[in-house]
Amino acid sequence: MAVARRTARDIRSDSRLDVLHAVLSAAEITRNELVQATGLSPATVATVVGELITAGILVETKMSVGLVGRPTATLGMNGAGGRVVGIDVAETYVRAVLFDTALNQLGFVEVERDEHFLTPELMVEAIGEALDMVLEQERVARDDVRGVGVSLPGLVHGSAGVSVLVPHWAWRTVDLDHLRERVALPLVIDNPLKAIATAELWLGRGRFCPNLVTVNLGTGVGAAIVLDGQIARGSTNSAGEWGHSLLALDGRECRCGRRGCVEAYVGAPGILRTLSEIAPDHPLVAMELQRDVIGAMARAIESPEPDDAVRETIARTAYYLGSALADLVAVVNPQAVTLTGWTAWALGAHMLPAVREHVAAQSPGQSADALELELSTVKGNSVATGVATIALERFLADAGLITTRIPIAL
Amino acid sequence: MAVARRTARDIRSDSRLDVLHAVLSAAEITRNELVQATGLSPATVATVVGELITAGILVETKMSVGLVGRPTATLGMNGAGGRVVGIDVAETYVRAVLFDTALNQLGFVEVERDEHFLTPELMVEAIGEALDMVLEQERVARDDVRGVGVSLPGLVHGSAGVSVLVPHWAWRTVDLDHLRERVALPLVIDNPLKAIATAELWLGRGRFCPNLVTVNLGTGVGAAIVLDGQIARGSTNSAGEWGHSLLALDGRECRCGRRGCVEAYVGAPGILRTLSEIAPDHPLVAMELQRDVIGAMARAIESPEPDDAVRETIARTAYYLGSALADLVAVVNPQAVTLTGWTAWALGAHMLPAVREHVAAQSPGQSADALELELSTVKGNSVATGVATIALERFLADAGLITTRIPIAL
Repeated sequence: MAVARRTARDIRSDSRLDVLHAVLSAAEITRNELVQATGLSPATVATVVGELITAGILVETKMSVGLVGRPTATLGMNGAGGRVVGIDVAETYVRAVLFDTALNQLGFVEVERDEHFLTPELMVEAIGEALDMVLEQERVARDDVRGVGVSLPGLVHGSAGVSVLVPHWAWRTVDLDHLRERVALPLVIDNPLKAIATAELWLGRGRFCPNLVTVNLGTGVGAAIVLDGQIARGSTNSAGEWGHSLLALDGRECRCGRRGCVEAYVGAPGILRTLSEIAPDHPLVAMELQRDVIGAMARAIESPEPDDAVRETIARTAYYLGSALADLVAVVNPQAVTLTGWTAWALGAHMLPAVREHVAAQSPGQSADALELELSTVKGNSVATGVATIALERFLADAGLITTRIPIAL
Repeated sequence: MAVARRTARDIRSDSRLDVLHAVLSAAEITRNELVQATGLSPATVATVVGELITAGILVETKMSVGLVGRPTATLGMNGAGGRVVGIDVAETYVRAVLFDTALNQLGFVEVERDEHFLTPELMVEAIGEALDMVLEQERVARDDVRGVGVSLPGLVHGSAGVSVLVPHWAWRTVDLDHLRERVALPLVIDNPLKAIATAELWLGRGRFCPNLVTVNLGTGVGAAIVLDGQIARGSTNSAGEWGHSLLALDGRECRCGRRGCVEAYVGAPGILRTLSEIAPDHPLVAMELQRDVIGAMARAIESPEPDDAVRETIARTAYYLGSALADLVAVVNPQAVTLTGWTAWALGAHMLPAVREHVAAQSPGQSADALELELSTVKGNSVATGVATIALERFLADAGLITTRIPIAL
């Protein structure tokens, strides 16, 4: 378990990644702007850009002619380099999203979760079907697909190799060879927190902010931690399981078996529980699907006369979330915290001001004074986007353009 | 705030650090063993060892002659290269420890904390006096001192530069120029958690274990986090303030102003509070000094018939500590957690079996299955040892032998 040794090849890789990230985040950028954005020398930028154009990753999108000097080329990602697919296997759905190699989203399919998914065999089949469906729907030939990324919850690396462990799901291991055969395309697998971290690092605040936490709020909750520009994976790929850290010792029972976990308060079922504690007879309590209730709660709070129970539920959730985020600030001390996930999209904007106040009040010393706490700028399903980005990263690594350590992706 | 760029010079520095860490942890080692221990090539080891011998950092300690071949030299750190001093400014004492340049401890002085320390001026004077005293006691000329490291609690980097922020102490800023003048020797300053992390990385489990947390248990508690072989500092140098993360929402009042912090349960005053809740009239509750009570508690539990109140206090503290460590396992997912600090030395061995059980029961999935939870192998005051190590690191950096990023050390 020695620390991976850095080589001169890694340094070249870092330069290429810096250029790629800068191009992706700017959409269009000149070589001079790349020198500014990356801190690399003009000579290095020229070399790296040349290599990436030759490899078909970057393209010169247009030339602008100034009053003096040579015309200046604007660079962009080459979207015509093929397609990548990101598949988010979540608890209530499987979503397959198609991207071009510039990471522009082209289309998606979503299959609702069904209790039949709860066997490993049917889960593999559901992933395969979602992939087939999105390729057919968008009329993409399999030969044009450079890579498929699949995000599986609870993917960890243990003494028995890689396994998928979702304590509250019926299945505990997925036959990854079976999944590889079914997909039959270059495949990477990782867990949702690593996918979100990658999305934030390539496309969100990560490029400007080397110390960053992205919090995913949905049925489950978790934190993707980026430290010094690197994704913190931990020793078994399960770093960031903040959802199962304590908010309240001996508190609410969590479905993981522990009591008092953050998730039992700020996961969607936890929010519904708070509502039912405040107003057991509230009509929303009787609704069947989590996502419908959270959506209805967002509409209620946006209405001209929001009801008191919903208002109080959101205020308490903001207190729980702010308290739990202050713990992340205490332990990780990030420069920015971004929120993503479907609960964040529905309720985040309503909670942010109060959450910021609670975080500021509860974080140690000055550690939160300069903290940026915002919704993520990576919109939509950042798990699918992130795992597609990992697939693209792997494609670039296989092409010899970057070195990358993906301990789990297979 | 871009990520610091790695250069070829950093790679050479990494090789030298790998060799130094291997020599320090082995005490005596041959070039062939260094190849095994570091994974570097024989040629690189030969070059690096030659450079470090020329610089007076390493020495050949003896030659052993085998039956065949050339005699083999054993290498060690050159303790005759001068002296370094580590000064731990704690809440109940200031301790100055003298080391040789092989980081062997040669002597120390400890000045009890006095309420007069609570002004910045007198604190600077106390640090200067402790330094003068240890040099005089050990008969060391100031010219022989290669560096002095001072650990100050609550040292952070904020928008207004570096400051010392201890919310429960009366002083909030130390005039660092004043400290530099008083010490009048090459000086580095850092906070205790960074000192402990450095000690663990150079001298403890850190060399074998790139993902590691060292927990300091004393009046205050905190965690030093090492990820991928790097100390996690966070954006304002306050990563690891686990002591001020939540154990219990709205729980015991913490002296930091928050309620329910880990420190309010497992810091020495928190342990005393647990005892007083269990047995308000227990004779230990009336004792004046924290360290005396914790020591008496250790003697009580080691006695043939330990009293029930102490036993119950230790059992509850193990539950609190195990629950709080499970949060670190959830968020950081380390391979090993080591305990240090005076409370750990006094009570750690009595709590470890129960703490291990609580951590295993409460950590998500398999994340704690392979976790090593032990007392640190860096004995004694690892804050002083660690900050002396940072001073040595800075000396090596100033000599051009290693590159190092010490964002706070001044």
